[in-house]
Amino acid sequence: MPPEGDVVSVPHQEAVRRRNLGAVLRYVHLRGATSRAELTSELGLNRSTIGALAAELTAVGLVHEGAPRASGRAGRPSPVVRTNAAGFSAYALTVEAGRLRAARIGLGGDILDSRTVARPSGNDLTATLTGLARELRPTDGSVPLGCAVAVVGTDRDPALGETLGEALGLDHPVQVGNLADLAALAEHTRGAAVGVDDVIHLHGDDGISAGLIIGGRGFTGHNGIGAQAGHMVVNPDGHPCRCGHRGCWEAEISAAAGDRARAALWLGHGLANLVNILNPGAVVFGGTLAGLYRDGHDQVRGRLHASALPACRAGLRLSVALLGDDAPLIGAAELAFERLLSDPLNTAAA
Amino acid sequence: MPPEGDVVSVPHQEAVRRRNLGAVLRYVHLRGATSRAELTSELGLNRSTIGALAAELTAVGLVHEGAPRASGRAGRPSPVVRTNAAGFSAYALTVEAGRLRAARIGLGGDILDSRTVARPSGNDLTATLTGLARELRPTDGSVPLGCAVAVVGTDRDPALGETLGEALGLDHPVQVGNLADLAALAEHTRGAAVGVDDVIHLHGDDGISAGLIIGGRGFTGHNGIGAQAGHMVVNPDGHPCRCGHRGCWEAEISAAAGDRARAALWLGHGLANLVNILNPGAVVFGGTLAGLYRDGHDQVRGRLHASALPACRAGLRLSVALLGDDAPLIGAAELAFERLLSDPLNTAAA
Repeated sequence: MPPEGDVVSVPHQEAVRRRNLGAVLRYVHLRGATSRAELTSELGLNRSTIGALAAELTAVGLVHEGAPRASGRAGRPSPVVRTNAAGFSAYALTVEAGRLRAARIGLGGDILDSRTVARPSGNDLTATLTGLARELRPTDGSVPLGCAVAVVGTDRDPALGETLGEALGLDHPVQVGNLADLAALAEHTRGAAVGVDDVIHLHGDDGISAGLIIGGRGFTGHNGIGAQAGHMVVNPDGHPCRCGHRGCWEAEISAAAGDRARAALWLGHGLANLVNILNPGAVVFGGTLAGLYRDGHDQVRGRLHASALPACRAGLRLSVALLGDDAPLIGAAELAFERLLSDPLNTAAA
Repeated sequence: MPPEGDVVSVPHQEAVRRRNLGAVLRYVHLRGATSRAELTSELGLNRSTIGALAAELTAVGLVHEGAPRASGRAGRPSPVVRTNAAGFSAYALTVEAGRLRAARIGLGGDILDSRTVARPSGNDLTATLTGLARELRPTDGSVPLGCAVAVVGTDRDPALGETLGEALGLDHPVQVGNLADLAALAEHTRGAAVGVDDVIHLHGDDGISAGLIIGGRGFTGHNGIGAQAGHMVVNPDGHPCRCGHRGCWEAEISAAAGDRARAALWLGHGLANLVNILNPGAVVFGGTLAGLYRDGHDQVRGRLHASALPACRAGLRLSVALLGDDAPLIGAAELAFERLLSDPLNTAAA
């Protein structure tokens, strides 16, 4: 397929430098402590450029340069660059069917602190989320850079991001994303699907939501609500679904819940459809589907083999979420860090 | 979702010039004769740059600059740039269930000449295609730039592209693509789905194949075989399918074929699933599905409304292929022109 035909102009040296600062910081953020030598070879920039970029990031405190790792090779060992996880963090929140979670996550992706509470009924959602996030405020003077919230389903308060941003005293709205999309992002960037360009992340909660990575990019769909694969009708004469229809994938799995093997067969049935339609390189099961896949592994694979075309399932990797239940929180943090990673110096200095 | 974190370097002025030559040629190729003034405003380059680029393209014969169109505005009218359709063309071939087609398509997208024959049985495919293409050879001394072939389904001869390239005397293999993918590309670039970033093109032949445009880019999937949506199982107790499974979408539509209204309901059923999963901005029906959608419009829309989530179908545009049965040929030509459009001067001079 043809690339886009946009015109280009010569970018300013300054824009190139900023973008490369972002690339170095992003690499260390995602892969952990990395030697300058590895950054040089992985990013395809020369040694002196990497040295200058690392020095700039060190000067504003975003990274530390530390003792070299023994390389076992001759020559001067290369200093190791790591993120300043304590100094820069983001809030990540999730609104799940039965609970709310909040975490403060350091640059580099480690969860520094977290809280989980039962989901309140009524309108207390924003107040409860705000309260949770406030409990996580850093006490060492470091300033959180941003916040994002992962929400299940399509039914959401359009003012949630703004209200939360104000309540947390941020100068910009909290970003809101689909829980399955953010879990997919987390597994794609640092979990079970690193290096795979076409990924389906299936998250089970009170329903099934799908997060898609297509061609290496997060899929959001025309209306920005992502993939509502749980409402694919798999059985026209099936069970009623909470959406008002009948025979939806999530309704059939849920109706079979007392019989784990049957539920796993339905999981495999819908999976085969998605594999035929989207020919993914990896499918990751998260939330309640992780357990169903683990227990019903044989049924899921059996049904997949029976119903998916060989050409579509060739090379497919099935796995449970490597980041477990934390995938949505970690994905939300990735979203919140994005501004910093795109333009490190301006964001860190602001 | 975060953009990719690739490093960039300052592109050479020469690379910028080449890319911009491609952007101007692509614009005129897709949109038809265009004034320099419109190119200036649409491509965001200044007037003298557009003038220089148009002059370079004119010098190698890729475009003609002609009499200005009356603009109705004061000031000097702006010369019009149009492609040299007679001088530069590509071969486009299709391998469909029951027939083979071949066309020579001029730069700008017009079909200059075409042939259609019944699909031969056995191994005569390559010989027949080659014969068809040879009949289309230009007699005016102009040289075809390339060739691409659109093939239905996943089962294809891996040597087809190379064999055809040799037989046609090209210095590079013929490119091979899925028929539905190339039809989707054609409708996206110059048909019913121009300007829509998320598109499903459903092509009916002896089965149903889907071509997807996601985020403005052609979707190929992990194994490069595209979306095999016809084999989504929509009815676990349904009719046997030629793939060996039961209740596939294409099998249910095909089994209901004597009752057009029932077939249209099944079309709507699978459509609703795809809309829930992919939240497209446009769905285009081509091949035999164009007629089924036209005749069973009410059933398709009725079932879509009954089974797709409102959030997924909001803003969705349904239409038949604007390019009709020529969409796969035109898409194949786009693929064949891509080398030229990416680097006009080097390709045209070669």
